[in-house]
Amino acid sequence: MSSTWKLQPQNPVPSDIEVSRSLKDSILPISTIASNLGLTPSQYHPWGPSKAKISLSTLPPSPKSNYVVVTGLNPTPLGEGKSTTTIGLAQALQASLGYKCVACIRQPSQGPTFGVKGGAAGGGYSQVLPMEEFNLHLTGDIHAVTASNNLVSAALESRMFHESSQTSTALYSRLIKNNTFSTVQLERLKKLGIEKNNPQSLEEDEIERFARLNINPETITWNRVLDTCDRHLRGITVGTGSKETVKKEPGSTERVQHSRETGFDITVASEIMSVLAVSTSLSDLRERLSSMVIGFSYDNIPITTLDLGVSGALTVLMKDALMPTLMQTVERTPVLVHAGPFANISLGNSSVVADKIGAGLVGEDGYVVTEAGFGADIGMEKFFNIKCRKSNLIPNCVVIVATIRALKMHGGGPEVKAGKVLADEYKTMNVGLVEKGMDNLIRHIINARKFGVKVVVAINKFKTDEDEEIEIVKRMSLEAGAEDAVMSNHWEEGGEGARELAQAVVEACSKSNPEDFKFLYELNLPVKEKIEIICKEIYAAEGVDYSEKAEHQITEYEKNGFGDLPICMAKTQYSFSTDPTKKGAPINHRVLIREIRSCVGAGFLYPIAGDIMTIPGLPTRPGFYDVDVDVETGEVLGLF
Amino acid sequence: MSSTWKLQPQNPVPSDIEVSRSLKDSILPISTIASNLGLTPSQYHPWGPSKAKISLSTLPPSPKSNYVVVTGLNPTPLGEGKSTTTIGLAQALQASLGYKCVACIRQPSQGPTFGVKGGAAGGGYSQVLPMEEFNLHLTGDIHAVTASNNLVSAALESRMFHESSQTSTALYSRLIKNNTFSTVQLERLKKLGIEKNNPQSLEEDEIERFARLNINPETITWNRVLDTCDRHLRGITVGTGSKETVKKEPGSTERVQHSRETGFDITVASEIMSVLAVSTSLSDLRERLSSMVIGFSYDNIPITTLDLGVSGALTVLMKDALMPTLMQTVERTPVLVHAGPFANISLGNSSVVADKIGAGLVGEDGYVVTEAGFGADIGMEKFFNIKCRKSNLIPNCVVIVATIRALKMHGGGPEVKAGKVLADEYKTMNVGLVEKGMDNLIRHIINARKFGVKVVVAINKFKTDEDEEIEIVKRMSLEAGAEDAVMSNHWEEGGEGARELAQAVVEACSKSNPEDFKFLYELNLPVKEKIEIICKEIYAAEGVDYSEKAEHQITEYEKNGFGDLPICMAKTQYSFSTDPTKKGAPINHRVLIREIRSCVGAGFLYPIAGDIMTIPGLPTRPGFYDVDVDVETGEVLGLF
Repeated sequence: MSSTWKLQPQNPVPSDIEVSRSLKDSILPISTIASNLGLTPSQYHPWGPSKAKISLSTLPPSPKSNYVVVTGLNPTPLGEGKSTTTIGLAQALQASLGYKCVACIRQPSQGPTFGVKGGAAGGGYSQVLPMEEFNLHLTGDIHAVTASNNLVSAALESRMFHESSQTSTALYSRLIKNNTFSTVQLERLKKLGIEKNNPQSLEEDEIERFARLNINPETITWNRVLDTCDRHLRGITVGTGSKETVKKEPGSTERVQHSRETGFDITVASEIMSVLAVSTSLSDLRERLSSMVIGFSYDNIPITTLDLGVSGALTVLMKDALMPTLMQTVERTPVLVHAGPFANISLGNSSVVADKIGAGLVGEDGYVVTEAGFGADIGMEKFFNIKCRKSNLIPNCVVIVATIRALKMHGGGPEVKAGKVLADEYKTMNVGLVEKGMDNLIRHIINARKFGVKVVVAINKFKTDEDEEIEIVKRMSLEAGAEDAVMSNHWEEGGEGARELAQAVVEACSKSNPEDFKFLYELNLPVKEKIEIICKEIYAAEGVDYSEKAEHQITEYEKNGFGDLPICMAKTQYSFSTDPTKKGAPINHRVLIREIRSCVGAGFLYPIAGDIMTIPGLPTRPGFYDVDVDVETGEVLGLF
Repeated sequence: MSSTWKLQPQNPVPSDIEVSRSLKDSILPISTIASNLGLTPSQYHPWGPSKAKISLSTLPPSPKSNYVVVTGLNPTPLGEGKSTTTIGLAQALQASLGYKCVACIRQPSQGPTFGVKGGAAGGGYSQVLPMEEFNLHLTGDIHAVTASNNLVSAALESRMFHESSQTSTALYSRLIKNNTFSTVQLERLKKLGIEKNNPQSLEEDEIERFARLNINPETITWNRVLDTCDRHLRGITVGTGSKETVKKEPGSTERVQHSRETGFDITVASEIMSVLAVSTSLSDLRERLSSMVIGFSYDNIPITTLDLGVSGALTVLMKDALMPTLMQTVERTPVLVHAGPFANISLGNSSVVADKIGAGLVGEDGYVVTEAGFGADIGMEKFFNIKCRKSNLIPNCVVIVATIRALKMHGGGPEVKAGKVLADEYKTMNVGLVEKGMDNLIRHIINARKFGVKVVVAINKFKTDEDEEIEIVKRMSLEAGAEDAVMSNHWEEGGEGARELAQAVVEACSKSNPEDFKFLYELNLPVKEKIEIICKEIYAAEGVDYSEKAEHQITEYEKNGFGDLPICMAKTQYSFSTDPTKKGAPINHRVLIREIRSCVGAGFLYPIAGDIMTIPGLPTRPGFYDVDVDVETGEVLGLF
């Protein structure tokens, strides 16, 4: 069946969920997909009928394959089809050209699925099946992040609560069980430089240092998380219950509320999601989950998850999540879905583990196609400078997805807004706007080449695109240094629609030389210098300004030994600049860094250059109004 | 291998996680357990190597099997081993006596696993394997409840937010998409008595009624939930963020914060968990998820999840959770793990679906052993009056678990407290205390017999128990009307240790007559009368008092048509009375009902008779200090 079966796309293309449902009976058992990849039954675990988790025993030490990253120009708010192109290209490489191929994509946040965004499984005839399982619980990884993140919060809050009402001696006696230190407690002792194993042998000052974290609540940067678009949780006061009170002072009979201003983020913004994305093994995961900084003590010492005693428990909660999830596309191409860190304040890339396992499975002649979120100025830059640095994988080719629509917007077309009717300029031929908008794409092409990687432009085809418009993109892309620029119709036709794109990618990979690949900056440069390299080289900014707060934070981070971390910029995806309305290729702009936060566990600093929203809201009529189940058949309805 | 293999218990019994690990290689693939039960591959889905979800297609219309419920006397804070006895009895029935048997138990809350409670998979040589998977994410059902519950909260909060700043006409135009009503909107119209399908045809007053829920925030009873012991979330203020503001009045330029006092509960206290426990099919699930009352409008109209438009989306989120999870015991007995509603404010019983599927799988000569949480005065009473009423399954036999320790406490022994050294009375023979404490057990025996069901007492053996003490329990239990009273040593010996108990249960079942079974009250009685029957017949209370609030609520519920629901008492498990310190068999006590809440979706009213804590805290040294992973082998350490 599998060798003769061929996708028969319908025209016009039905809705994503209808495509998904219509192919329900033609997808293969996930065990067949696994076995086609050469996995033995002990190397994967089915998780329901259409998903499987891949064991970390399949993680190769230094895999080699063709490695392709899909990114895009600065998008319109409607999105330009990066995920769809990633899936379509993988389908073309495998089903049309016969290469072994794995697509690696992020797990989408469930919250926005019920809000305005809809699904993220690709679309049309380039999507992951079943799309409803992809978009909802999947194999529980995001839920595991929620549980882990909030265990840290509970540990943090209750530790402050207990410290506020107990002497150090009382705290210490309660912290010691059966007169022995637990593993995490021994690790904390070591960190404090107290080389003792017997709880009886600590001096009074050592007891004080060990038992009291002395957290300054003003410095806490750790938020609780939920994978729900609940904007009223952005700012909250916790601890207002009648029992969350403590003595005003030692010995006092007066009690005061033990409350605090804080907030929730959406789960994919949790540092633990970033940790999942960059971890390379179970021991690396544990190490990272130990070193997350949640705030500072009154003496300005960074307080970590290790200090809270939760690192082992977090690793237990996250160990299954470290296994990527195997699914398949509408053309039975294997897909590894893994991690989904927010693109604004985090990496916006799927996991290191999935890409490495994928490379091992497809082998030297095969292809791993992975996606980098947001525009290339953010997603691709982070992919190269952060993700590739952690994975040691060397990319051969960047695919930059462009649409005529987005190019026209960059060329000066009217505002494009979700839920608003698209202006006529976008529906009829307008060569001038396209030509002018090429500024944006060209800068991304030049940027990509700075890393020593081959570039292919994929023009994601819309019905309204005209040949002349497409010709401009092709010509100007080649002039800017792209290996090729190809129109692709995978949404409508599946892999066959991306055959030409796949051929261009194969060609570009064959010409690439791994030795050409280079990072944009070295880690041992001062923090400010690294930020400035990104802003000048990638955004074409004139310079960078820092708030007083940011200046202070840089000093503190460098003092605490975090200065060598790579930089993960938090900036709008709608412009090269920090002003989302500046389209095209703005110059002479400056970047203002308001503050810099740290993700020490995940291993980066993130300067904040713009408004960052870490929990979306729901519109008056959220997407959930259409979502339902046929209670007779169990089929999901209304996801899009 | 499976026919000749036999459990070889070690002595002394290692810790639960060590037992679990030592048997890692002797457990069967979950597909073998499934196939031994007669399930075909299409009837179940493996979920990792040691768990599977059972398809609802296996749900039989009116299954018959022997149906045994395990409950207990009023326990000490250390617990008397109901879960362990449930598992041990099932092992004995299958492995020792050769009957087909399925044990049905609740999924434990993950929060307390990291706090003080530890695991809930049974213990010693009567437990579910692998215990770490049982105690942690399992197959994601609790996570699905968290996600669903909090989608309701987000929908509720943002609906109030949008209503506060929009006219009804504006709201209406935003609520209507593509000029059609969605299914949930049509259902709401029907509920409002507006029999129209065309959005253009509504009159102005109909638009007003449809578009504006007009929720009175003071009446909201719906809390957010997390499966984490985070006591600082018990009371919170939401909506304190800088963007959660609304105009003070229409047309006003002054803005005020859109904030509100509310709180979180632990996930197992969510009404959605109760709904999961009682649902009988996918359509029943959807119906229940539509009818949950979250609060009242300013006109005192109950506002439901249907009105919020989320019922379809909730069903999508919960549809996989409706499938019970198959696991196995240390002796390869099949176990269905499903739902875990809080025993205090909810049922404290596992799901109707799991018991019915279990009965269908073991057949007429087989045994379903199910567990009811808390003491028999709560768990068993709710099992009979609520769960059996929804399932139509007729129980044959009640097993009441007792320990010499708990009996001595009821007889006047010193206080038993977690973390405190046990007094000498509990370690040396004391016939007098046991004899006096039998008051408590005897009343439970008499209560169980009021339902027309046979009673077997299981004395869960501890090392310190003396023969004379056990003889007293046996003699007095038989005198009180138990069919048998048997000492059981399943913790140490596995099923073989419960062989005699299993024989007594088989004997009791063979004598039982389904026609003897009766409920304690009829649903159509007035609410107060139902409450009084429970308090007088089960708790031996002299009478019931109601606060003014409770009186008012009863009137409102009866007016809104909720008066016919069964009663789910929220009361301490440590005493028959509402005072946890009153041990034995108190008389002349009165029950004060402070308030009565409704779970209309799950289908019960719950009167609150005592302090109810719906989110536990963490001690100074929580259990997570010991929990870790061996990063080389992936083995979980330190769960207990």
